[in-house]
Amino acid sequence: MTKLSVRHLLGIKNLNENDIQTILDTATQFKEVINRPIKKVPSLRDITIANVFFENSTRTRLSFELAEKRLSADVVNFSASGSSVTKGETLLDTVNNILAMKVDMIVMRHSSPGAPHYLSTRIPANVVNAGDGTHEHPTQALLDAFSMREKLGDLTGKKIAIIGDITHSRVALSNIFCLQKLGAEIMVCGPSTLIPKHLGELGVKISHNVKEALAWCDVANVLRIQLERQQIKYFPSLREYSLYYGINKAMLDDLNKEIVLMHPGPINRGVELSSDAADSQHSIILDQVENGVAVRMAVLYLLAQQ
Amino acid sequence: MTKLSVRHLLGIKNLNENDIQTILDTATQFKEVINRPIKKVPSLRDITIANVFFENSTRTRLSFELAEKRLSADVVNFSASGSSVTKGETLLDTVNNILAMKVDMIVMRHSSPGAPHYLSTRIPANVVNAGDGTHEHPTQALLDAFSMREKLGDLTGKKIAIIGDITHSRVALSNIFCLQKLGAEIMVCGPSTLIPKHLGELGVKISHNVKEALAWCDVANVLRIQLERQQIKYFPSLREYSLYYGINKAMLDDLNKEIVLMHPGPINRGVELSSDAADSQHSIILDQVENGVAVRMAVLYLLAQQ
Amino acid sequence: MTKLSVRHLLGIKNLNENDIQTILDTATQFKEVINRPIKKVPSLRDITIANVFFENSTRTRLSFELAEKRLSADVVNFSASGSSVTKGETLLDTVNNILAMKVDMIVMRHSSPGAPHYLSTRIPANVVNAGDGTHEHPTQALLDAFSMREKLGDLTGKKIAIIGDITHSRVALSNIFCLQKLGAEIMVCGPSTLIPKHLGELGVKISHNVKEALAWCDVANVLRIQLERQQIKYFPSLREYSLYYGINKAMLDDLNKEIVLMHPGPINRGVELSSDAADSQHSIILDQVENGVAVRMAVLYLLAQQ
Repeated sequence: MTKLSVRHLLGIKNLNENDIQTILDTATQFKEVINRPIKKVPSLRDITIANVFFENSTRTRLSFELAEKRLSADVVNFSASGSSVTKGETLLDTVNNILAMKVDMIVMRHSSPGAPHYLSTRIPANVVNAGDGTHEHPTQALLDAFSMREKLGDLTGKKIAIIGDITHSRVALSNIFCLQKLGAEIMVCGPSTLIPKHLGELGVKISHNVKEALAWCDVANVLRIQLERQQIKYFPSLREYSLYYGINKAMLDDLNKEIVLMHPGPINRGVELSSDAADSQHSIILDQVENGVAVRMAVLYLLAQQ
Repeated sequence: MTKLSVRHLLGIKNLNENDIQTILDTATQFKEVINRPIKKVPSLRDITIANVFFENSTRTRLSFELAEKRLSADVVNFSASGSSVTKGETLLDTVNNILAMKVDMIVMRHSSPGAPHYLSTRIPANVVNAGDGTHEHPTQALLDAFSMREKLGDLTGKKIAIIGDITHSRVALSNIFCLQKLGAEIMVCGPSTLIPKHLGELGVKISHNVKEALAWCDVANVLRIQLERQQIKYFPSLREYSLYYGINKAMLDDLNKEIVLMHPGPINRGVELSSDAADSQHSIILDQVENGVAVRMAVLYLLAQQ
Repeated sequence: MTKLSVRHLLGIKNLNENDIQTILDTATQFKEVINRPIKKVPSLRDITIANVFFENSTRTRLSFELAEKRLSADVVNFSASGSSVTKGETLLDTVNNILAMKVDMIVMRHSSPGAPHYLSTRIPANVVNAGDGTHEHPTQALLDAFSMREKLGDLTGKKIAIIGDITHSRVALSNIFCLQKLGAEIMVCGPSTLIPKHLGELGVKISHNVKEALAWCDVANVLRIQLERQQIKYFPSLREYSLYYGINKAMLDDLNKEIVLMHPGPINRGVELSSDAADSQHSIILDQVENGVAVRMAVLYLLAQQ
């Protein structure tokens, strides 16, 4: 039961429930490791991993890099800026070149949905998708599920609200796939302009009222409004968004129930979350970050066994 | 006596004389280490250090990175360009995220005076200030003091002239604090437009005549004219500056005394120093760079014991 | 016979045939190492190497970095962007600063022909030229020779055609020097605007007809058209170039002989090579990349013995 059914982690959609449980159980063990005084294990000694980031992502790259180093892997970083990509080389040529240098695994972020899948069918190495456009971000979904399970136990029947800009978020889709496979009920909540039409087909509830969503759920996973994506014209405006969908501590306290507040970061304080909510006792946002390293160690470790 | 009175190295102002002596004595031992064929010690094995640079600084970052690696620490680098900072995240959130990944120490450069102090009161990790705006640059002051002590012995009563753009230099302020605590006498020298008015209150002599300063001092610590800070309108102009305050070898030789020439780098050859001065027998500029690694090893080692 | 006649690898011009054979023989051993499950050897433990890149080159930098790590060296990377170079520091000062931090070897890419040579006469460390302008790129030539020898055996009398933009290529010149020392015959082929006049003096054949060159040679080493060098006005145009000098698989198959196709990368598919040629059984392009790591390990290892 410690084998995955896949050779690559391309998305949650491709995993079965057993894969997810195996990853989460393995991550539990690695979380113990990184909380010991000696945080390293020799598991991936003699494995070389390339972090190939065609989009900037300090946070995710750092989390993967620490996961790799704590597994004793050799790590090389490749970022698109200043690379042969700008010299007109194809993605496949770039990655084949890296692999020819005897690299065993590729962790890749790319702006195009499907880029990791495309690669995985053409190269011998294991591929880990660290985010492909607005498609999937599977390790984020796994660390979210891990953090919920750590807080609430078995997720069967648990109610999870995903709140915010669902359309432009790879986190949302991966979360929905992952949590449904673990038996949770999902509601997405946001203005109708930020919720894709086809979501109903996935069997999720849809709400346009944040108070309704908070009243319903055990966990509120609040997504970030992506200020840096200039091409997104937010309607409603940021100020309206914050007014109608922003969450503060009083709203959470007034529920008079246990509610878990999550956010994949980076937070726009004052937009989707007030500072007092982000720093409240409801929030497990920093646990998510810590769990991210353990979950990524588990993913890399398990794929290396395939 | 091998304990510091502080948990962070935020500035020289916060250190007592004993702290400074402890750091310099420990650095003496590490200088021996890095001059052995085997330059590494296992002292910080199992410690993870993040170099968090919100301003570019190849030289200082490289010196810290080598110090960390020679102590066998795990090192991760985080630079502001392409980071979540540009996505609107707060400094505290950025650093808390890095810490949640089980990072033990933060070495930080930031353009805002006081940023490392602000952080140190809000996070559990040790913070080392690698330069905060025009405020302090404590490891530079410590390596300068180390280099002077190595050359001249006990600094009590020694005469140190700091020459150049005092106003825009974090090196100047840290040097003054450090050298005064070690009992040295300080003179600052430069055009009145580049010397802050309040400096007299610190008990330093002020001169506007570089020949007078050189005649007076045992050590001339020449600061760089910061060509890259576009917002600085130099008055006098660079050409005038060089004419009235630039130092060449003949000026040093004509003194007919032992004088030690220092510069924190990078040198603008032909502006504040002529090439023949920078490369003369008076200069210990490259010793400063070498000592920088040893002093930073000492600081990191001692803080890790706190 | 395991000693080189030089302390630096500045160019192939300075090597004698014995040096080249020693490097290729040593690389053969390292190629075995990196194809074992355990890819590392402790040969350069306690050696610190700085990769100092004043021009971007992800591919070459990554190959050197992996070579260094597999030799167990400590590695620090220094790139010009955001460095003291932009603060007006001289090349010699920059490198002397890096060396003062107890760095043992310098791998350098620089846009100015002769920059590594200049440095090598002024600093104590071993210097490896990783490309200096349009002058030399010696490790590329060595890995090309290694790859040819691996495929064809002894190169004496073998016929090598170098096809493309000879004028703007440092690879061409290093290849010519290297292959001539190993006894091969060389033809360069391209439009007359892209072949320097003085090449005839080097004893190479010149052709302006790609079919003639292919018919003549055992190996076709096809150079890339450097799309990113904006200052190059290609005459003929890219479309004409591709029409008259581009190579496709049918052209190679029609020769009815064994021919080895090489390219230093990154490939512009559809310009100098068609995709079917690049991916054909004639191509050893990815072997070149793999051999690059082994050859660089050999160079670094042998220089460290000097």
